[in-house]
Amino acid sequence: MRLSNKKVLAFVEEDFEDLELWYPVLRLQEDGAEVTLVAKESKTYTGKYGVPADVDVTLSEVDPSDYDALLVPGGWAPDKLRRYPEVIDITRHFDEKKKVIGQICHAGWVLISADILQGVKVTSTPGIKDDMTNAGAEWVDEAVIEDGHIISSRRPPDLPPYVKAISDKLAD
Amino acid sequence: MRLSNKKVLAFVEEDFEDLELWYPVLRLQEDGAEVTLVAKESKTYTGKYGVPADVDVTLSEVDPSDYDALLVPGGWAPDKLRRYPEVIDITRHFDEKKKVIGQICHAGWVLISADILQGVKVTSTPGIKDDMTNAGAEWVDEAVIEDGHIISSRRPPDLPPYVKAISDKLAD
Amino acid sequence: MRLSNKKVLAFVEEDFEDLELWYPVLRLQEDGAEVTLVAKESKTYTGKYGVPADVDVTLSEVDPSDYDALLVPGGWAPDKLRRYPEVIDITRHFDEKKKVIGQICHAGWVLISADILQGVKVTSTPGIKDDMTNAGAEWVDEAVIEDGHIISSRRPPDLPPYVKAISDKLAD
Amino acid sequence: MRLSNKKVLAFVEEDFEDLELWYPVLRLQEDGAEVTLVAKESKTYTGKYGVPADVDVTLSEVDPSDYDALLVPGGWAPDKLRRYPEVIDITRHFDEKKKVIGQICHAGWVLISADILQGVKVTSTPGIKDDMTNAGAEWVDEAVIEDGHIISSRRPPDLPPYVKAISDKLAD
Amino acid sequence: MRLSNKKVLAFVEEDFEDLELWYPVLRLQEDGAEVTLVAKESKTYTGKYGVPADVDVTLSEVDPSDYDALLVPGGWAPDKLRRYPEVIDITRHFDEKKKVIGQICHAGWVLISADILQGVKVTSTPGIKDDMTNAGAEWVDEAVIEDGHIISSRRPPDLPPYVKAISDKLAD
Amino acid sequence: MRLSNKKVLAFVEEDFEDLELWYPVLRLQEDGAEVTLVAKESKTYTGKYGVPADVDVTLSEVDPSDYDALLVPGGWAPDKLRRYPEVIDITRHFDEKKKVIGQICHAGWVLISADILQGVKVTSTPGIKDDMTNAGAEWVDEAVIEDGHIISSRRPPDLPPYVKAISDKLAD
Repeated sequence: MRLSNKKVLAFVEEDFEDLELWYPVLRLQEDGAEVTLVAKESKTYTGKYGVPADVDVTLSEVDPSDYDALLVPGGWAPDKLRRYPEVIDITRHFDEKKKVIGQICHAGWVLISADILQGVKVTSTPGIKDDMTNAGAEWVDEAVIEDGHIISSRRPPDLPPYVKAISDKLAD
Repeated sequence: MRLSNKKVLAFVEEDFEDLELWYPVLRLQEDGAEVTLVAKESKTYTGKYGVPADVDVTLSEVDPSDYDALLVPGGWAPDKLRRYPEVIDITRHFDEKKKVIGQICHAGWVLISADILQGVKVTSTPGIKDDMTNAGAEWVDEAVIEDGHIISSRRPPDLPPYVKAISDKLAD
Repeated sequence: MRLSNKKVLAFVEEDFEDLELWYPVLRLQEDGAEVTLVAKESKTYTGKYGVPADVDVTLSEVDPSDYDALLVPGGWAPDKLRRYPEVIDITRHFDEKKKVIGQICHAGWVLISADILQGVKVTSTPGIKDDMTNAGAEWVDEAVIEDGHIISSRRPPDLPPYVKAISDKLAD
Repeated sequence: MRLSNKKVLAFVEEDFEDLELWYPVLRLQEDGAEVTLVAKESKTYTGKYGVPADVDVTLSEVDPSDYDALLVPGGWAPDKLRRYPEVIDITRHFDEKKKVIGQICHAGWVLISADILQGVKVTSTPGIKDDMTNAGAEWVDEAVIEDGHIISSRRPPDLPPYVKAISDKLAD
Repeated sequence: MRLSNKKVLAFVEEDFEDLELWYPVLRLQEDGAEVTLVAKESKTYTGKYGVPADVDVTLSEVDPSDYDALLVPGGWAPDKLRRYPEVIDITRHFDEKKKVIGQICHAGWVLISADILQGVKVTSTPGIKDDMTNAGAEWVDEAVIEDGHIISSRRPPDLPPYVKAISDKLAD
Repeated sequence: MRLSNKKVLAFVEEDFEDLELWYPVLRLQEDGAEVTLVAKESKTYTGKYGVPADVDVTLSEVDPSDYDALLVPGGWAPDKLRRYPEVIDITRHFDEKKKVIGQICHAGWVLISADILQGVKVTSTPGIKDDMTNAGAEWVDEAVIEDGHIISSRRPPDLPPYVKAISDKLAD
C-alpha cells in the first residue's frame, strides 16, 4: 500500500464534524497510513451529530516530528482547538517542515490562529471566508484547493476529492 | 422608564447562546425598550442549550431605520447570521448611523463580515480574538468595551455590566 | 451600586426554569448584589431546557442569616426543593425575619410547603393557582405582586418587572 | 373476563409518567376492559422518559357518561391537565356519579383543581402531600388507598396493588 | 396470591423495550411473584425510550436454579444479550428444566442463540420471523403462542394476554 | 476514474450505522461511481448516532436493473429494511444477476430474509452470527470476506478493506 510507511495525526475536540473526522481517517488507513487521534484529554469525544471518537494520545504527549501529515476536521471543534497553545505549536511544526496539512470546513480557524495562511490559496465553508481572507489567504470556492503542503476543502460532499488529494500528496 | 421610547432589534438564529440572547432582551424591556426578535424565518428557534425564541419579524421584512439599537447574541448563531446579505446590510446600517450595536462572545463574526471593525476597540470570547484582530480591531480582555456606538463583551458572566453599558448608552 | 452590600441566596435543583433562575441572578449582580447558588449537592445542575448552573454552597452548609434575600426559581425544581427539610427551614427563616423572598411560576410550591402563605397576596403560573389558594393565599393574575417581603410573578415574560421589584425592595 | 363490559377513560398530556399511564391501561385490558386515551389534541404524546401514546379521542369530543372509570397518570402531565376546563368537568362527572377514579403520584393535582378531595383519604407522591392536605384530603403514606370510588397510589413500584384495587372495584 | 412462592428472573440490557420489560415485571409482582432483574453489570440500564431499570444481580452472580421462570424483553437488548455465554447458559438451564420462558418481540434472538427453538411453535415481531424459522421454529402470527414451557408474543399491545399466559402457566 | 461508469444503490432506513452508510458512499464516489440512496420514503433519515441522509429515490420508484452494485449498511436499519417486499426483491435481483452486494455488521439480516446466503461464506457482527449460520451461510471472523459477488464485513474499523474490496470487484 502506497502509504504504508506514513504516519498521520488528526486533531479531535468535542463537536467535530463526524464525517470530516472519520472519512479521512478511514480512507488514509485504506492506503496503509497509521492514523493517530490526538486531543486535549484521553477520553471519548463526541461529534456534532453523535459519532464517538476514542483518543490515542494527548496534546501534551504527542511529538509532531513523528508524523508525516496533519488532519484538522471541521464542526465546532476548531473553535476550541485554536485556543490550545499545543495545537498552535503542532500546526506550525507541520507548516515549517512543509508536511501535509489537510483542513476542511471550519478547520481554517486553527490555521488562522497558527498564523500560517499569509498568501496561501485556500477554500473552506463560506461561513469563515472573511476570517480566512482577513488572515491573508486567497479564498476560492472550489471543492479542493492544494497550495503547496496545505490542502483545503469546503464541506462533507467534497470529502472524496479532498482525501484523494491528501493521499496523492502523501504518496509523492 | 428611561428607554420607553426606544426600539431595539435582536438577531436570532439556531444555537444562539441562550442567556446572551435573553438577558439583554429582558433587561432592556425592564428599562422600557421595545425589543424585536428578527431572523431568517418566522418560526421558533432553539438556543444552544435548548431555550426557545419566537421570532417577531423576518430579515426580509424588517426596516432597520425603525430601530435605535442592534443586539447580536453569541453561541453558534453568528456563524450562520454572517452569511445572510440582509444581516450584513442591517449591521452596516446601524454602524453608518452610529446607532448602538451590542455584541457578545462569538457575535463578533457578524461584525467582521460586515467589515465595520477597522480601528475599533473590542473584546469577545478569546476563541475569536485572532479573527477580530485580523479584521482590524484592537482586542482587549475586559468584561465590557465601549468604543463609540459599538459595545462588546466576552461571555455570560459579563452580561450584567454589558447590558448596563448598552442601556446607559441608549439612554443618553 | 445600590445593592453592593447585599447578599442574595438562590435555590437550585434539576429542571429549574432556565431564565427564571438566571435572569434574577445576573440582574441583581448588575445592581451590585452578591448572589449565591445553593442546592442539595455540590455539582452542576441542568435547567429544564439545558442551561447549566454550578452550585456555590450546599443546603447543609449554608447559613441563611448571612443573606438579605431568597430567590426561588420555577420549572420542576420546586417539586423537589419542597421535600427537603433544609429548604423549608431556610424559607421560613427569610419569612420570619421579613427578608425579601422572590418566587416565580411554580416556585410557590416551596412557599406552600413552608406554610408561609396564609393571608398573603400572590401570583404564580395559573397551573398552581388552586394550590396557592388552598394554602391560604389570595391569588391574583398580575405580572408582579408585592405583599410585604414576598414578591411573586407568573412566568418568564414577567421577569423584567419582577426583578425590578425585588431590587427596589432590597435597596430600600 | 370480569371487566369485559367496562369502559375506562385515561387522561394523557405531554410528560406523563410512562409506566403510570401504560401499566394500568394494559392491565385493565387484560381483564377485558376497553380503555380509551383522551387528550387535548389528536396526536402522539410523549411520556416523561419517551414512551409514545396515541390519543383515541379529544377532550372536546369525549362523553364521560360512556365510561365506567377514569385514570389519571402522574409525571408532569397533571400540571397541564388541571388547567383545562374539560378535564375539570370530566373529573367532576366521575366523582358525582361515584364512578371509579384512579390517581397516582402527581395525578392528585387534577383532583385538587376539580375540588373533589374534601374529606377524602388519599395517598400520592410525598411531593404534593401539602397540596393534597390543603385541598381537604386526609393524606397517608401507603401503597394504595381506597376511599369510596377514589383509589390513589404513590409511585411506579406501587402499580401492582394500585391497579388490582381498581380492577377489583370495577368488577364489583 | 397465586404466585407468592414463585421467583422470576428478567434479563436486562441497554435499549430494552420499556413496556416489554416493565409490564411483565409489575404484573407478575401483582400475583405475588418475586422478580429479579439480572444484567451484565450492576448499574442502571436505560430502555429504548428512556425508562430506567436498576439491576438486582449480575449475570455472573445469579444462580438460575433459584428461579421458576425467565423473562426476555424485546427492543435492541436481545442483540447484546445473545452474545454473553452466561445468558446462553441461563436460558438453556430454563429450557432443560422445562421452566417457563417468556419471550416477546425481538427476544427470540436470545433463544435462537441458545439453540432451543428446534420444533417449537412461536411468534415474535415479524422482523425476526425469518431468523426464528431458520432456527427451526414454527412461526405463527398470533398475539400469544404457548408451546410447552415457551411462551411467546409479538409486541407491546399483546402484553395483556402474553403475561396472563405466563402467570397462568406459573400458577399451574 | 475506474468506476466512472458504475452506478451503485445504497439502502437507507432510520438508525443506519452512520459510518457504515457514509464511508462506502463517499469512497465509491471518489472512484467515480454514482451512488444513489434509496429508502421507503422521500425524506431525511437519521443515523443511529445522528448523521442525516437525504434520500434520492424511493423503493417503489427505483429500477434495480439500472445499478451495478448494492450497499446494505448496518445499525438497526436492516431490522426494518428486511420487512419491505421491495427490499427483498431488489436484493434478489442483485443476487440473481451476480452483481456486487456489499453488507456490513447487521446488514446480513436483509440477505437472510432475501434467502440468498445458502452456502455463501460470510462475516458480520458476531451478534448475528447464529442467524447467518442458520440461514445456511458459512460464517468466519475476518475483516472482509468475498465470496463471488457477495462481500461482507464486520464493523466500522473494517471499513477500509471492506470498501476497497467492493471497489476492486466493481472495477474488474
